[in-house]
Amino acid sequence: MNTTFNSDQFVNALKKVLPGHGRFIGLHEPFFKAHEWEYVKECLDTGWVSSVGKYVDRFELLLAEFTGVKRAVAVVNGTSALHVCLMLAGVEQNDEVIVPSLTFVATANAVSYCGAVPHFVDSEEKTLGIDPYKLKDYLGEITDIRNSECINKHTGRRIKAVVPMHVFGHCVDLDALAEVCREFNLELIEDAAESLGSYYKGKHTGNWGRLSALSFNGNKIMTTGGGGAILTNDEKIGEMAKHITTTAKVPARWEFVHDRVGYNYRMPNINAALGCAQLEQLPFFLNEKRKLANRYKHAFEDVQCGKFFVEPDFSHSNYWLNVFMLDENNSDQRDVLLEITNNQGIMTRPAWALMHKLSMYNSCPRMDLSVAESIEKRLINLPSSVFLANDDAV
Amino acid sequence: MNTTFNSDQFVNALKKVLPGHGRFIGLHEPFFKAHEWEYVKECLDTGWVSSVGKYVDRFELLLAEFTGVKRAVAVVNGTSALHVCLMLAGVEQNDEVIVPSLTFVATANAVSYCGAVPHFVDSEEKTLGIDPYKLKDYLGEITDIRNSECINKHTGRRIKAVVPMHVFGHCVDLDALAEVCREFNLELIEDAAESLGSYYKGKHTGNWGRLSALSFNGNKIMTTGGGGAILTNDEKIGEMAKHITTTAKVPARWEFVHDRVGYNYRMPNINAALGCAQLEQLPFFLNEKRKLANRYKHAFEDVQCGKFFVEPDFSHSNYWLNVFMLDENNSDQRDVLLEITNNQGIMTRPAWALMHKLSMYNSCPRMDLSVAESIEKRLINLPSSVFLANDDAV
Repeated sequence: MNTTFNSDQFVNALKKVLPGHGRFIGLHEPFFKAHEWEYVKECLDTGWVSSVGKYVDRFELLLAEFTGVKRAVAVVNGTSALHVCLMLAGVEQNDEVIVPSLTFVATANAVSYCGAVPHFVDSEEKTLGIDPYKLKDYLGEITDIRNSECINKHTGRRIKAVVPMHVFGHCVDLDALAEVCREFNLELIEDAAESLGSYYKGKHTGNWGRLSALSFNGNKIMTTGGGGAILTNDEKIGEMAKHITTTAKVPARWEFVHDRVGYNYRMPNINAALGCAQLEQLPFFLNEKRKLANRYKHAFEDVQCGKFFVEPDFSHSNYWLNVFMLDENNSDQRDVLLEITNNQGIMTRPAWALMHKLSMYNSCPRMDLSVAESIEKRLINLPSSVFLANDDAV
Repeated sequence: MNTTFNSDQFVNALKKVLPGHGRFIGLHEPFFKAHEWEYVKECLDTGWVSSVGKYVDRFELLLAEFTGVKRAVAVVNGTSALHVCLMLAGVEQNDEVIVPSLTFVATANAVSYCGAVPHFVDSEEKTLGIDPYKLKDYLGEITDIRNSECINKHTGRRIKAVVPMHVFGHCVDLDALAEVCREFNLELIEDAAESLGSYYKGKHTGNWGRLSALSFNGNKIMTTGGGGAILTNDEKIGEMAKHITTTAKVPARWEFVHDRVGYNYRMPNINAALGCAQLEQLPFFLNEKRKLANRYKHAFEDVQCGKFFVEPDFSHSNYWLNVFMLDENNSDQRDVLLEITNNQGIMTRPAWALMHKLSMYNSCPRMDLSVAESIEKRLINLPSSVFLANDDAV
């Protein structure tokens, strides 16, 4: 197959969706067209900008309602959310935690913050996330259950939890993964940083893990500037998540007493105000992003070097970042396409460098990662901002 | 001495400064009267609300200029700033770090995040902060220098650093403390969370430590909603602080490569926008707070149960939270005064519970803490908002 020919096909398909008019097209830009300014201004007018205020409470209630969980706790970002999820799930120093190698670095870092060791596992082509069947076989080989704990026979360490990440908003096969977790007595923690608005078999992501983490970073489907949330259906754990993320201060009239080592992970009220306004628009955002994904899918139908990535059957995805996947025999073309498109002012990017290739994680335990390695070579993210859905909006 | 009589004197002095008009008077409320709206709105209008943006860069430059350090790195809050300061000063698991028992819990928590152990030391009545002379004697007794490291003879652990906190904006005796650090080969890290705008012998706090931490929480002299900063005069350390607080991502055109376990401690641009506007007003805030402190000082001159706390000779303090200190023989009156004033809608509060009394820290090493224990019983914080400086403004 001819590389130049394929490049042209790819670029032309992209430009059919993004006519451009010479403007730089970013990967994912936020969209503030509703009550953002009104709510933020109210914070400034009343002086309630910081860690206490009505928007934090309201944002938590709206999030719980939207995702269908019993309790949402707003925090300072997705990384801190995941850190607290792992702590409250009982991950301790020298434990191992199963994470995909194909993920953003925060997934592995949160494990490190607990003094635990990430153990990298492979992804499946269909979801871009953890392959539960390959994981099941692997755990069967390398672990023993001793005193109800899953022990890695090679390292002697306890494997405490599995953290699937719903990559670019596409759901991991959660039923199959939950079954593996039950069999091997592992806590399931969902890294739902990218999957707000994504549903697995009709139910919102974040409902399978004992705890789950969301992110509202500036590049996410909705943003609070910086922010995240912890989701849980266990009210006691939800209370503890709120307590531990607000310095573990014991309620009192004036005393400053804290009853454990807590964290200052509170989301400021001014950021929560932004969050409330964005969450009100989320159904609109999801609709627009689905329209954009459909336009990409259609435009790339005749491109021969690869395919537009479509949600798995069981996933109603938010299409946070759209994905073009090169075929195996065109995997050496990724950087050519990145070069051409970025040079023309259309921002595209590859997946993250795989975790097991990073210097601080390259000696961590891992299984065969051939699928993740193949995906990494072939994946290209396409511009995905909400306002790109209608071609006259560019 | 008659308790009731003293209470009346205290309350009347307080009301002379805060005439009230029936309004609830908080302890420290923010003041947004300049460019806050304009800058925040610009973030929303341009879509630059998150972790990259011109306000973050500008805020860092303005902070460095104001404090006179070579590099300021804006982060998500004061606790995270202190955590990174300790890490970059080389604090490691199982080290001990000298912190005052009389401090906000974040000082000790940041030590815990490093896997290190806080070692509590006493304060002096003159500054409310670490007593460098008592510390010197104590270290002389309990430590040995082995291979240029300061070893606690009782625990066998290395003592790596000293973290003075400038309580309520009053400077610790930094020259004397720096001398102790040199003698015992300890890193000096300033917890300057409360001392933005406070000068020790004419130079801004944060210039004595190899690294120092600021806080811009909602109750501080200026606020970013939630936020903090790392200060340093070592440009290499400053670069590393920026790197480690921004996920340790290696600069690249499109690759996502991270070269160490980093942190997502970035201050969002929308919060930095607020910070720029607040910092522009800081000289005004400092002036107003000094006026308010002088009015308190004058009003409490004839109160017999204690004294208004005045800055030490070597400190030009920001008077962040004003302090009334009961005499030793009236130390059982603190809660009486707190009760009366809070019942009348004037918010006052005690100091923090001492760190060595908190359940998670009560088995940590400590020296005699009699001065801190005495201060804790006698200290009352008074309303200190900028807009209280002029009595017609209440």
